[in-house]
Amino acid sequence: MENENVMRRLKTVEGHLRGVIRMVEEDAYCIDVIRQIQAIDAALNKVSTQILENHLNSCVITAIKGNNVKERERVLKEITEVFAMSAKV
Amino acid sequence: MENENVMRRLKTVEGHLRGVIRMVEEDAYCIDVIRQIQAIDAALNKVSTQILENHLNSCVITAIKGNNVKERERVLKEITEVFAMSAKV
Amino acid sequence: MENENVMRRLKTVEGHLRGVIRMVEEDAYCIDVIRQIQAIDAALNKVSTQILENHLNSCVITAIKGNNVKERERVLKEITEVFAMSAKV
Amino acid sequence: MENENVMRRLKTVEGHLRGVIRMVEEDAYCIDVIRQIQAIDAALNKVSTQILENHLNSCVITAIKGNNVKERERVLKEITEVFAMSAKV
Repeated sequence: MENENVMRRLKTVEGHLRGVIRMVEEDAYCIDVIRQIQAIDAALNKVSTQILENHLNSCVITAIKGNNVKERERVLKEITEVFAMSAKV
Repeated sequence: MENENVMRRLKTVEGHLRGVIRMVEEDAYCIDVIRQIQAIDAALNKVSTQILENHLNSCVITAIKGNNVKERERVLKEITEVFAMSAKV
Repeated sequence: MENENVMRRLKTVEGHLRGVIRMVEEDAYCIDVIRQIQAIDAALNKVSTQILENHLNSCVITAIKGNNVKERERVLKEITEVFAMSAKV
Repeated sequence: MENENVMRRLKTVEGHLRGVIRMVEEDAYCIDVIRQIQAIDAALNKVSTQILENHLNSCVITAIKGNNVKERERVLKEITEVFAMSAKV
């Protein structure tokens, strides 16, 4: 994983989330809170996409070039699963 | 806002997010990290839904029962906007 | 419902979907098919948003201004439910 | 592409969509229409997932096992792109 970039984004999301918690504590307007949560969702989707990109360019290439068919199937099945889930959350 | 329940959920999400940051620090398997991020997404959607429910049962009722047409229009437009956005994130 | 506009959009989606079926028949490139399906998804989300907007400005206003508390609760609960679902599909 | 199964699902969606158009023509209750559109969205996501699965097990394996680095990069980039988009629609 290109950890640094992913890490930096996740810490930004953490700061954003703490800001939302503060908004709720200070009784901010509901719709403003929802909008901030939606912005966090969008940021998390970008992190997931980047992690997937790293994964495709490392583990997935290795698994497909390798001779272990079971391993290759497992790795491809995981991609399908996270894709299916990403459409749901 | 029924703050307490929303607050409790957001703090749970914060703990979950910190766990994900730790996973990345410890170089966890990419797909496991993505799955945890998707779980956070799902939890945040539940928080948003609860905030919207509170909002509908307070501000929205007040705005619609009130006499200020502009205010009513504004409040209904916001609902439409967060709905449109929720389908995108 | 402002039927005409919703109707027009749905018929456009129907044409789009037929185009996708044709692509699959003609053995088009998988990723191109997925992208067209995602475009259809986005178009359907816009239709849903417009239907919700019409609903808020008619039934929801009527229910909230009315005296039937059960009916009001039902109508608001439905909004919450479609919002929760929209984050999932 | 395992065309038959994908084809069958898409035709089911087409029938479902025609049902929704009929509902709008007959002035059905807005929320019921939105729920049916959300069901179509969910069905389309399943079709996309199946197409992706077929694609991973054919083109992607071929591209990664092949010697054309540009082609491999292109194919992996496409996976990342449809994943990023799937989180948005």
